[in-house]
Amino acid sequence: METPDVLAWRDGYIEALDQTALPHQIRVLRIASVGDLVDAITSLAIRGAPVLGVAGAFGVALAVRQGRREGWDAARLASEIGRVAAARPTAVNLAREVAAITASADLADPASVERAALAVLDTANRVSRDISVRGAAYLRECLRDRLDAPLRVHTHCNTGTLACLGWGTALGVIRALHEDGVLGQVIVDETRPLLQGARLTCWELGQLGIEHRLAADGAAPFLISQGLADAVVVGADRIAANGDVANKIGTYSLALAARRAGIPFVVAAPESTIDEDTPSGAQIPIELRADEEVTTPAAPAGTRALNYAFDITPADLVTAIVTEQRIVEPVSLEINCR
Amino acid sequence: METPDVLAWRDGYIEALDQTALPHQIRVLRIASVGDLVDAITSLAIRGAPVLGVAGAFGVALAVRQGRREGWDAARLASEIGRVAAARPTAVNLAREVAAITASADLADPASVERAALAVLDTANRVSRDISVRGAAYLRECLRDRLDAPLRVHTHCNTGTLACLGWGTALGVIRALHEDGVLGQVIVDETRPLLQGARLTCWELGQLGIEHRLAADGAAPFLISQGLADAVVVGADRIAANGDVANKIGTYSLALAARRAGIPFVVAAPESTIDEDTPSGAQIPIELRADEEVTTPAAPAGTRALNYAFDITPADLVTAIVTEQRIVEPVSLEINCR
Repeated sequence: METPDVLAWRDGYIEALDQTALPHQIRVLRIASVGDLVDAITSLAIRGAPVLGVAGAFGVALAVRQGRREGWDAARLASEIGRVAAARPTAVNLAREVAAITASADLADPASVERAALAVLDTANRVSRDISVRGAAYLRECLRDRLDAPLRVHTHCNTGTLACLGWGTALGVIRALHEDGVLGQVIVDETRPLLQGARLTCWELGQLGIEHRLAADGAAPFLISQGLADAVVVGADRIAANGDVANKIGTYSLALAARRAGIPFVVAAPESTIDEDTPSGAQIPIELRADEEVTTPAAPAGTRALNYAFDITPADLVTAIVTEQRIVEPVSLEINCR
Repeated sequence: METPDVLAWRDGYIEALDQTALPHQIRVLRIASVGDLVDAITSLAIRGAPVLGVAGAFGVALAVRQGRREGWDAARLASEIGRVAAARPTAVNLAREVAAITASADLADPASVERAALAVLDTANRVSRDISVRGAAYLRECLRDRLDAPLRVHTHCNTGTLACLGWGTALGVIRALHEDGVLGQVIVDETRPLLQGARLTCWELGQLGIEHRLAADGAAPFLISQGLADAVVVGADRIAANGDVANKIGTYSLALAARRAGIPFVVAAPESTIDEDTPSGAQIPIELRADEEVTTPAAPAGTRALNYAFDITPADLVTAIVTEQRIVEPVSLEINCR
């Protein structure tokens, strides 16, 4: 089965894969107004920071078209574009791409705006592809002594097309290994509390025909200790200047287990994730989300939780960070791949 | 609110707290026949290895009473006792206690059988209490430099009264620290896939009035790295002769995180858990359970899982094993508590 595009510009409207319906339903949304786009973003039908950036760019193109159709003046157009930018406040990519395209394109010329929006999509795709290819080449070099058998890779959360467009980041590296014909099996953490691994990554791997197994998050370190993975590959939400990595909660336990097992722990992320202004992980603010994501429905009523959405993996546990431009080995004392 | 007994012998019948109804309902079962007892065990209303041992002993007493009432011959009585022993095949305690009481008590004398059965309960309670008190004393010694603030303890799965009678094992140690007035907060892993932490441990801590927070299993290592626990205390399903510990899946990640954070990782378990015939963790068979426990309902249909129920924590990560008789420090190179 062919996977529908996560996000596409059709002449005058947006098509988006409804991520709230996955994995049990494949539903494509046809979005022809700013109001519908804002609804799709706030309901998480469209999600993932790089995806939201492209959605912001497409949103400006959509507003320009709708403004022409409905005779908006400049003030109304600016206000509608502002609604797109503000649809979700925390994903910086959304507001950043809306601002960039508003500043650079000619809002009086729909074709110019649409070209600029499609360029944002192209860039996201290219960055993802470059990360994927570079990461796969790095891992094949790293694991050159193990290539007589198909490689087994452990990953976490969702870092594929659904979150990042193109091939994704960590999942893009996995896909490139698959295309290279050297991949055996992927182990996917379910990624509590929101189960992005179980819901989205398993679905993407199924679409790609990549052999995979789902595991409870608590099982991951044991599986790694038992030799069931040759490498761990994850994405990143933010990387500090010293190489400390903030990523989805549960990542740090994989890094601890990988170090103990003596296998590489590789982070795949765009350059835009590296934040040179943050000296170390200690300065990265970690989002504390609602208790109910963890407590409902199993725990007794009134139970409190500690629901951090991300964790910090110290740089000394990171074998390499792979971006679209380079490979950084923050410390790499114990595992030297090159 | 007073917690009902997990398991009690009332003159001629068994009362059991229905663990399938927890935490949302407190339902006490009145079990007056072997058939009802077998149903309660197979449905997991009665669960936990030490609890099953006592249930087996009570089951023999129940069969003797029912046999008198219904005029069973010796063959029928033996067959009904056999049904109790076989109600769950994997929990060795059940068959072991049925065999012990059948061999030692006079089945023609109901009072003798009941005395023997109550002695099994007494032993379970005493063992649990001894582990709890010894473990709390050990931790207070271990953490003597931190006692100026209330202690924070991280735990996993369910190791309280519900699983072990008495005060439990790891949760018994936590309860003893609470009774000593030195406990601040407990962090409980939800313990996927079956959520014993969320469902049962949170309920027990709530009943005891002990301050606690629930966390996703993947969050545990991060919380420990952030200084949110002074110690990790867990139970054990089997301990090898070299000190390797098999316990509920997810335990190993806590041991890795505790070592990195420099805090004690303490295992609380009865002597009967130590298996001198198993040289190391590599010889402990690990139960692989049904995929559906992990895949349902979030993953796409047809997703396969790797659902190991237990993991192995190597002895070199274990600060101490506390039993009803002694404290064993398998290696304790980096953290020396005494």
